[in-house]
Amino acid sequence: MSIEKELFRSGPYADFFSQGVKVGDSLYLAGQVGMTETGEIPAELPAQVEAAYKNIATVLSQFGAKMDNIVDETFFVTDMNECMSQVPQIFQAREAAYGKKPEVAQTLIGVSALVDPGLKVEIKVIAKI
Amino acid sequence: MSIEKELFRSGPYADFFSQGVKVGDSLYLAGQVGMTETGEIPAELPAQVEAAYKNIATVLSQFGAKMDNIVDETFFVTDMNECMSQVPQIFQAREAAYGKKPEVAQTLIGVSALVDPGLKVEIKVIAKI
Amino acid sequence: MSIEKELFRSGPYADFFSQGVKVGDSLYLAGQVGMTETGEIPAELPAQVEAAYKNIATVLSQFGAKMDNIVDETFFVTDMNECMSQVPQIFQAREAAYGKKPEVAQTLIGVSALVDPGLKVEIKVIAKI
Repeated sequence: MSIEKELFRSGPYADFFSQGVKVGDSLYLAGQVGMTETGEIPAELPAQVEAAYKNIATVLSQFGAKMDNIVDETFFVTDMNECMSQVPQIFQAREAAYGKKPEVAQTLIGVSALVDPGLKVEIKVIAKI
Repeated sequence: MSIEKELFRSGPYADFFSQGVKVGDSLYLAGQVGMTETGEIPAELPAQVEAAYKNIATVLSQFGAKMDNIVDETFFVTDMNECMSQVPQIFQAREAAYGKKPEVAQTLIGVSALVDPGLKVEIKVIAKI
Repeated sequence: MSIEKELFRSGPYADFFSQGVKVGDSLYLAGQVGMTETGEIPAELPAQVEAAYKNIATVLSQFGAKMDNIVDETFFVTDMNECMSQVPQIFQAREAAYGKKPEVAQTLIGVSALVDPGLKVEIKVIAKI
């Protein structure tokens, strides 16, 4: 059995994985980190959240999708205390990214490491189209 | 492209995320933690597992779904040693929640933190309807 | 509402969860660890990655699926530094498992523990059929 995939490859690891894979009405995104498209990692967590959502929106747009297509998101953060102390700022950045109160399921997990020591957050989302 | 979402919002963060999002036959639940509906966090891991499944069942019921609709679950635990030393009690609580041998894929991961320091487990599930 | 599930149970926890659950065109796999089918845990991370993919391929085959049916993978690793220092070897093992440049979304997370202290990696995948 074979399936029909649409892929969006980008960045230094473009040969190794796709930033998004669409099959049928399901769109799986690679976890997007708090790094700007020019490769900078903001010092503060809310700014990293903003950057991660910009990356997510970029991937979605390759499939003709928007933030509202997201149904599920998982936040992986390296410092839960820092995260919980900045919930209002994070939710503000998030609502700005969605353009409204997000209509998504959310899970928040503290992890021991992300791919770069400067990263404080990675967001993995699933979208439906 | 827009999609038709059904949402269930509840709890202190009801403005910020949904406890469940249904699109088509897919139902994504927010990670449910080991806290009772009155906000208590049991001291023991098996009791937290029981509480988390009660929360899951509550969310499922809002969509007319039952535990047997779950296809995939991920356990995030803060203390893997404690978890592995209590596998029989945890599986007992889990089988009671499902009402039978669960028919689900399962993944078990040790995490560095959950949203509250007293929490020992968060369970994230995906259901099909 | 009830759904039609196909299950593949295997291993010491066969009563407690399925290695794979298929509903419609979605196939959810339990996280597969870096352990061989004879229960050995290789010392090196790339060999564990190879073992995990062998386990994944075995589960997929029970549903008539192949590696190319995978759309999304999450790597949980216990030592991010070790992982990042062996990226070429890991990607080599991965490409060998897929038989080509993988067409999947990927997320890489550092975790505090996996189910056995010797394990360095667990890979959770979602496939479409």
